[in-house]
Amino acid sequence: MAKHDPDLSLLLHALSDPTRRAMLSRLTKGPAAVTALAAPTRLRLPTILRHLSVLEAAGLIATAKDGRVRSCTLVPTALDPVRGWMDEQRAQWEARFDRLEDHVMKLMETPDDC
Amino acid sequence: MAKHDPDLSLLLHALSDPTRRAMLSRLTKGPAAVTALAAPTRLRLPTILRHLSVLEAAGLIATAKDGRVRSCTLVPTALDPVRGWMDEQRAQWEARFDRLEDHVMKLMETPDDC
Repeated sequence: MAKHDPDLSLLLHALSDPTRRAMLSRLTKGPAAVTALAAPTRLRLPTILRHLSVLEAAGLIATAKDGRVRSCTLVPTALDPVRGWMDEQRAQWEARFDRLEDHVMKLMETPDDC
Repeated sequence: MAKHDPDLSLLLHALSDPTRRAMLSRLTKGPAAVTALAAPTRLRLPTILRHLSVLEAAGLIATAKDGRVRSCTLVPTALDPVRGWMDEQRAQWEARFDRLEDHVMKLMETPDDC
């Protein structure tokens, strides 16, 4: 048990903060400068940079510097491992119910000796 | 920005740990006693109980005590808010590309004055 998937853990940790999720939502509309991402948050720049660094380490955003402006872009495929994990859980869960259904059907087909 | 959704944050935080994800995977196969969940982890019982308490606080599992045995059950609908958030992100991203496509089509339809 507890097979370690550092990428998935990093991704889910990055997504677990509401400020970071809001930044990602903003970036689905197109790339943005750090100052534009910071503006609606009322947070100080060092805090914003720390959030962006968590998102970048998880592979959710890419940043590039053009002169004095640092611009952030969403990496839309980065959520794929999370989708993959959730689909896997759902498949295991559905398989369990299929097995339960088979079991109930067999019980119903078995002649009742009572 | 940064609209707070404590349930979603709790859920994603609970999912961000590999031991907790492995426990959930085990529970997709059916309910299990705490000792059965602990066995493959080599972790001490207090650590296991802490992980289970994070999963329960996020609504991902339900626990019940029958005599001296505490049993854990998956709450399969608990992942719905995570799916909802991811679908929302994808829809925003796809809407952005639809707008870009419309823009490019309009540019191509505009007579070239050069």
